[in-house]
Amino acid sequence: MSEAPQGCAWIEGSYLPIAEARIPILDTGFVRSDLTYDVVAVWGGKFFRLDDHLDRLERGCERVRLRSPMSRAETEEILEQVVARSGLREAYVETVITRGVPTPGERDPRRFENRLYAYAIPYVWIQRPEQQEVGSKVVVARDTVRVSPGAIDPTVKNFMWGDFVRGLFEAYDRGAVLPILTDGDGNVTEGPGVNVFVVRDGALATPARGVLEGITRQTVLDIATELGIPARVGEVPVSALYETEEIFLTSTAGGVMPVAELDGRPVGAGGVGSLSARIRATYWDWHDDPRFTRSVDYGD
Amino acid sequence: MSEAPQGCAWIEGSYLPIAEARIPILDTGFVRSDLTYDVVAVWGGKFFRLDDHLDRLERGCERVRLRSPMSRAETEEILEQVVARSGLREAYVETVITRGVPTPGERDPRRFENRLYAYAIPYVWIQRPEQQEVGSKVVVARDTVRVSPGAIDPTVKNFMWGDFVRGLFEAYDRGAVLPILTDGDGNVTEGPGVNVFVVRDGALATPARGVLEGITRQTVLDIATELGIPARVGEVPVSALYETEEIFLTSTAGGVMPVAELDGRPVGAGGVGSLSARIRATYWDWHDDPRFTRSVDYGD
Repeated sequence: MSEAPQGCAWIEGSYLPIAEARIPILDTGFVRSDLTYDVVAVWGGKFFRLDDHLDRLERGCERVRLRSPMSRAETEEILEQVVARSGLREAYVETVITRGVPTPGERDPRRFENRLYAYAIPYVWIQRPEQQEVGSKVVVARDTVRVSPGAIDPTVKNFMWGDFVRGLFEAYDRGAVLPILTDGDGNVTEGPGVNVFVVRDGALATPARGVLEGITRQTVLDIATELGIPARVGEVPVSALYETEEIFLTSTAGGVMPVAELDGRPVGAGGVGSLSARIRATYWDWHDDPRFTRSVDYGD
Repeated sequence: MSEAPQGCAWIEGSYLPIAEARIPILDTGFVRSDLTYDVVAVWGGKFFRLDDHLDRLERGCERVRLRSPMSRAETEEILEQVVARSGLREAYVETVITRGVPTPGERDPRRFENRLYAYAIPYVWIQRPEQQEVGSKVVVARDTVRVSPGAIDPTVKNFMWGDFVRGLFEAYDRGAVLPILTDGDGNVTEGPGVNVFVVRDGALATPARGVLEGITRQTVLDIATELGIPARVGEVPVSALYETEEIFLTSTAGGVMPVAELDGRPVGAGGVGSLSARIRATYWDWHDDPRFTRSVDYGD
């Protein structure tokens, strides 16, 4: 691995190496975390479900009253360029829309000029493939609950990870790698950057409320439809986690990640469940499926 | 007002004009809002309660397991320098400790090298003095509740302002300038960057739980002690806001800010209450009191 991190960013009109990519310290995207963002993967030189990610980004902007300074076509061009210039065939491609830098003395966020930043870095694995082959160790966080939707809307993808980071420290302290957070009312929500699926009697279930409407989550639901696996989006009680045959986590940063151990005990029969493995394989097959992909023009 | 914003920042070992102050886009202080910060005021060329702000910053770091890369003495020197170099006699002086930029592929936040950023900009008024003279228009947010302490600890000063920004939009939409957020269980918490005080039968009350332990809030409690005004820190039911004689808000960015109108109706007799006015006057007197101040050496 080289010293300088790989990647390319677009910052206020310029394409820069990621190591030089900086944002103004006074951007309210930093000092108020007032922003939304999205991450799309590039796999084998192709964007995966780019339209779905950009649709969600636009919905998020609308919900928190951000206006991207760039049109959809301009944004697509910027994303194509950061990937192409990075040369990365497998990339994690982030677009951030911030409220922007207020003029001195201005406090009304309706008057700020919103900004767009974007970058491509090497594909991020929340859990690496070799870990996914054996399944991960996860805990149900007991020291923190998920921020409620009445406080911060989790369907608007955001960087306000205070609860997730707290949960992550707890997971590490307990010898695990990821936490699953509850809503404090006995229901499962999500983990840091991951949606949660449970498998019971051969059927999938994933929480409906208090979670990001993940594109990988949607892809798993689409795969379930195609493979004829029953799937339900609704309330998932915390107790279900302890009575399930399989658990897996989903994210653009890692795909479908089986959970082998919960709170120090094996999930179901232990190891990676057969349904999790089947869905995971299909998920990666779809990354080469023209229904969901768009090639990046690397100019080579 | 000049075009270039005034101020000076310290970024990774260099002092820079605020307009050039930038942070790496990959700092988890941005992409995970994983940080704590504090703001101390400089008034008439003197820091106000600097030790209390730095104590709180250190407590915050400890609670979220951040280690500042700078000693207390080094931090004090940096803050003195950003103020002196800015030339500002009235300044808003911010110190941020972030989790830092992970090395590629690293996900364990325990291993990141934490960073410190600092800057001085002109003193920030959440409500300007001329508005404070007549009192502000405030609403009780009905569209959002404050993030619960079980999700994100509000005593660790943070930038995760999703609930506050949502409330701020609601306030503006309803013809007001600031929202007060409830905890969703019938209790008052705080507003964006402000603690809340109510006055009933000549006594002060301010919420104990689900709020920042503001230095200005503490200063008001200290003033109450000195002036012999009874004061209580405890549960403040939302209903108390509508039965109170006076309401005021407190912040390092503006001091003691009387509320004249709540949800479109006058608070108490309307205008600025006598106790609010008295506390506000004492608050500013204390900015010249050697018990609480430390002069900046501007080298002139």
